Amino acid sequence: MNAGPSPLPQSALIQAAQSLLSYSETPGMGIAEISHRSKAFEKVLAAANADLKQLLQIPGNYKILWMQGGGLTQFAATVVNLAAWYRIKHQLKSEDPVHGWYAVTGSWSAKALQEAERMGLTTTKIVDGKKNGAGKFKGVPASPDEWTIPAQSDPKPAFVYYCDNETVDGVEFPSAGTSAAFPFDKFDKDIPIVCDMSSNFLSRPVDVSKYGIIYAGAQKNLGPSGATVVIVRDDLIVDLDEAVKYGGGRVPSMLSYKHMAANDSMYNTPPTFTIYVCSLVLRSLLESPPYPFESETAAPLSPLAQLADAKSSLVYSLLDDETGFYLGTAHAASRSRMNPTFRIKGGEQVEKDFVKLASEKGIMGVGGHRSVGGIRTSIYNAVTLAQVETLVEFMKQFRAERL
Amino acid sequence: MNAGPSPLPQSALIQAAQSLLSYSETPGMGIAEISHRSKAFEKVLAAANADLKQLLQIPGNYKILWMQGGGLTQFAATVVNLAAWYRIKHQLKSEDPVHGWYAVTGSWSAKALQEAERMGLTTTKIVDGKKNGAGKFKGVPASPDEWTIPAQSDPKPAFVYYCDNETVDGVEFPSAGTSAAFPFDKFDKDIPIVCDMSSNFLSRPVDVSKYGIIYAGAQKNLGPSGATVVIVRDDLIVDLDEAVKYGGGRVPSMLSYKHMAANDSMYNTPPTFTIYVCSLVLRSLLESPPYPFESETAAPLSPLAQLADAKSSLVYSLLDDETGFYLGTAHAASRSRMNPTFRIKGGEQVEKDFVKLASEKGIMGVGGHRSVGGIRTSIYNAVTLAQVETLVEFMKQFRAERL
Repeated sequence: MNAGPSPLPQSALIQAAQSLLSYSETPGMGIAEISHRSKAFEKVLAAANADLKQLLQIPGNYKILWMQGGGLTQFAATVVNLAAWYRIKHQLKSEDPVHGWYAVTGSWSAKALQEAERMGLTTTKIVDGKKNGAGKFKGVPASPDEWTIPAQSDPKPAFVYYCDNETVDGVEFPSAGTSAAFPFDKFDKDIPIVCDMSSNFLSRPVDVSKYGIIYAGAQKNLGPSGATVVIVRDDLIVDLDEAVKYGGGRVPSMLSYKHMAANDSMYNTPPTFTIYVCSLVLRSLLESPPYPFESETAAPLSPLAQLADAKSSLVYSLLDDETGFYLGTAHAASRSRMNPTFRIKGGEQVEKDFVKLASEKGIMGVGGHRSVGGIRTSIYNAVTLAQVETLVEFMKQFRAERL
Repeated sequence: MNAGPSPLPQSALIQAAQSLLSYSETPGMGIAEISHRSKAFEKVLAAANADLKQLLQIPGNYKILWMQGGGLTQFAATVVNLAAWYRIKHQLKSEDPVHGWYAVTGSWSAKALQEAERMGLTTTKIVDGKKNGAGKFKGVPASPDEWTIPAQSDPKPAFVYYCDNETVDGVEFPSAGTSAAFPFDKFDKDIPIVCDMSSNFLSRPVDVSKYGIIYAGAQKNLGPSGATVVIVRDDLIVDLDEAVKYGGGRVPSMLSYKHMAANDSMYNTPPTFTIYVCSLVLRSLLESPPYPFESETAAPLSPLAQLADAKSSLVYSLLDDETGFYLGTAHAASRSRMNPTFRIKGGEQVEKDFVKLASEKGIMGVGGHRSVGGIRTSIYNAVTLAQVETLVEFMKQFRAERL
């Protein structure tokens, strides 16, 4: 139940292990040994793209890029690519600043803001989650009115950024339809929305058409660490070298969406094995969804959303009951379906005992992030309902012994 | 026999496949599923570092960094880190240029130069391989006198760059002791030498102390694609943000050697599975070297160098004989032990037949790079002597039929 690299579907792992030794399309050669320019690997990448497109219902005017370097690299990549787009569009001079608006709802979006400032962006916090939580990140604004959005006259921001799920703080934007959902309507249509979905990617349907850029490190719901998916709207992809004329900085070509798109994610050697495992996970989500629910809806990810709700509800029901032994750290309206976080009555020593006993029962990695302490359970897609039931059983037993 | 991702030792692959399903240190959890912050993964990384240190006899004043993004990312990373080091050291102003000297001996070093210029470096070609080869890259200068090295008065270059082995052109710097070897003595001691060893890493002993930075994408001799090893001398690691005061550019923190070194390569989630496979390959090189030779020398990589010589000699003996059917494209003094390249008498159609027939015999990926054509055989560490013998047997047979 790690918050970092996390469980993968068993079927995908078995096939990946076999393919390491000998890949079905290249008998005698393993999937990690074939050329990224081979037909066999081209098929892997094409299948991954097609399946991802189907699962997320990605419109035709978006490119899927497979990059390296995780979310942290995208913290900078989104800034340099969108600042270049904005500079070219508005023919800025080098002294003209480019603005970015950040909804800071947890540790990761705070880090994204910091990296944007390092890259020279002029930033505005349109949500200051710590202020709203008395020094701690406890949730997203309860309604659109609580956002502090500047006038959208020129200069407009080059983009608006938010992080869909905060792993450290257990905070997640709820789905569309509740008042705490991301308020797309508050922003002018020509301002691209950038979203870091690293930790809740593929866990519910997403209306991709509302975004300029969505990115996600693979290592939660998609595959092993080492690959990052970037879904970017065509018209935002510009020539970074051209932007230098308009005051843009010098940018490594590996961060250029244009270079990546023009080369179908093979500007250089991509992480082939990692992408292969991602392709297996995507296939397994389409072919044999790992969830016991039936769905009547059209969106291919609805059943995964139902499963995520069911799993996290099991944990949250223990946090919401009258005993007050487990104390959720995030507001109910925007607590994470992926990373329920809580404190335990009795304080740090009891929490330490909890982590130790859990690990003895084979429930690993439930210690809170070192920056906040407490307990964090991580229940990504590949964590089964049965595994969450085991966790909840353990929590009940621990409580019975300590209360 | 691919030039890109290439064969891996069978023992490492078998263990990697097993560990994907269940890692010995975390029974029931696969190696790709454990947290990068877990003790189990920390041990993997520590072992990889220790083994690499032993194999390359890396001095104590060097850091080993595991990064993402391949050689292309390092083309920019070396520039921004060393330009920052130079700017701080000489307290430059923003209008002061920083110089870099490039030995261009093939397609990859040409690309490195191009990326350096994109990043704003003022470059000088101290070797222009194409000029020396009448429009084609055919070798490195035969002696130090053929290098065009400017006066080393101020401004000195921030660094001197070369690429040890050029996969596309089949050109490699010979080992120390021959007149075509890299002429370290021609450069002042305070100028860091930067070397891209992506495609011949771990194939011979290297005197690391002569370098400022050595880097290598994993995907030839070290592991699957998706990890890059950077070996960098301590004193060259500086704060990129501090360099902004002296005219340095804004640099993504993921490219900062200081960030990587300060966090033991875990500034963010590293490519854990890829690094794990690298650790297995490194172990296998120490424990059960995949070569039939005995070595009396102390350098742990000497036997691998002997093997590489033996394997490539088998191919080159066919290129050097009197029939002239196979025509080597690189000068004998600096032809590659990793990527022998050649043309075939009779021209492109015969070469096409060669590639097709080879693939039917299970010898894959011998077509030359699309930019140069011809034939390229890639015989990295994990390609066995027996496999090269099979290749040579095929080459003899093909020649017998066509000559």
